Amino acid sequence: MSVRYLIAVQYDGTDFCGWQRQKNGVSVQEVLEKAIFAALHVSAVVTGSGRTDAGVHAARQVCHFDAEGLTIPPEKIKDAVNPFLPPAVKILSCKPAPQGFHARFSAKEKTYEYTYLFSATDLPLYSRYATHVNVKVDINGMQKAAKDLIGTHDFSAFCASGSSVKDTVRTLTAAEICYTPFSEQEGEGLLKIRVTGNGFLYNMVRIIAGTLLEIGQGKRQKTAFTDAIKTGNRKMLGKTAPAKGLTLLRVCYE
Amino acid sequence: MSVRYLIAVQYDGTDFCGWQRQKNGVSVQEVLEKAIFAALHVSAVVTGSGRTDAGVHAARQVCHFDAEGLTIPPEKIKDAVNPFLPPAVKILSCKPAPQGFHARFSAKEKTYEYTYLFSATDLPLYSRYATHVNVKVDINGMQKAAKDLIGTHDFSAFCASGSSVKDTVRTLTAAEICYTPFSEQEGEGLLKIRVTGNGFLYNMVRIIAGTLLEIGQGKRQKTAFTDAIKTGNRKMLGKTAPAKGLTLLRVCYE
Repeated sequence: MSVRYLIAVQYDGTDFCGWQRQKNGVSVQEVLEKAIFAALHVSAVVTGSGRTDAGVHAARQVCHFDAEGLTIPPEKIKDAVNPFLPPAVKILSCKPAPQGFHARFSAKEKTYEYTYLFSATDLPLYSRYATHVNVKVDINGMQKAAKDLIGTHDFSAFCASGSSVKDTVRTLTAAEICYTPFSEQEGEGLLKIRVTGNGFLYNMVRIIAGTLLEIGQGKRQKTAFTDAIKTGNRKMLGKTAPAKGLTLLRVCYE
Repeated sequence: MSVRYLIAVQYDGTDFCGWQRQKNGVSVQEVLEKAIFAALHVSAVVTGSGRTDAGVHAARQVCHFDAEGLTIPPEKIKDAVNPFLPPAVKILSCKPAPQGFHARFSAKEKTYEYTYLFSATDLPLYSRYATHVNVKVDINGMQKAAKDLIGTHDFSAFCASGSSVKDTVRTLTAAEICYTPFSEQEGEGLLKIRVTGNGFLYNMVRIIAGTLLEIGQGKRQKTAFTDAIKTGNRKMLGKTAPAKGLTLLRVCYE
């Protein structure tokens, strides 16, 4: 009988072509499937809670895979598979999935974090996980603008063009901005944008991050989010921020 | 007339054979010298405040180089050279060095930080800058033991064997331990050991870090540092901790 296993995974997306298998480039999904095969001798398809793009990281992505006849106890799968994974991908935990569980369809809420490095120089020790900017921003104004995202809205403007998703209504329950200055260097620090919602459209978090930066710089009106929600017009919003600043923090289920 | 320039540099040491030029492998010094040549068309030798080993990082290494006839203003050198550097190495600032300045001989004090990741799994998002351990430690005991390092002592026991340094007396002015738990996962977090002194012997910080971990685990007596200082016996101390957890934080001059 086939058993469904639920695994939590952390990865540094820098050197991957994204979550999903692709013809060109190595995907996180592929290295997981290969490591599971190497360790457990089963060909499993690993299904994630959603795709992440090339360069996007995950602190705790949730996935499932089905396998038949495994004699290894689920809680030992992590330690069996991890040695076959590169340092950039590790399984955090493994357990039997609850009845009817599906990593994608059972997901209730996701939290993403976007990190900007405010600094005169793109600092090597932050460069992998933060997008470097050398501008001044009104953090208060960004915080206020972010609040307009909260609620149930049609986010059709917050989506990469060409997306085929039909239902563009999503509910965001949190949108917070946190700035941590570096003690050593005045005016330098990390700005984190954290958003939680029941789902996100393609590139939605990166469009939010790009727009917030423009609002903070005074390049875009503070009502940009409200205007874009009302009109559905992508042009009301800012540039899509680079992938490397984005991290999937967690996925919640019932 | 030759001018001496003082530069501050940050680097991620993961993919380098260390600070110093070597026959095998790419050194931080070499990529800096090549970038200076590419940008400014001068062959300069870059002298650091000290060497760092393969895999060791620097938040703010200080260096100097001499060059003749540069017409570019010193404050513009950073932006001219940085595009020729890989993302893992960047110049933070450049200015004319004070009279008689030497990056190594004028250094008065250095601060190093060693980071342990306490976690069930070696987490990909921390793996480059922290050494993973999956043990329980008595942080209070480590903090107390670290205090024994402070002061002027003969640190001959705190040195990789085969070192030819004659004067092994150093003065440490600070040795602090700071633990930051992860909010998401109980018992997991980052432990940082920060030491400041007028100089450090070869591998000294990594031996201190390795010993503190063993003291924290109860594998070594809390008096290990005092005993090693008294006897000069390397065997009183723990293993040399891996390079990747070590970061040179700053170098102070008068």
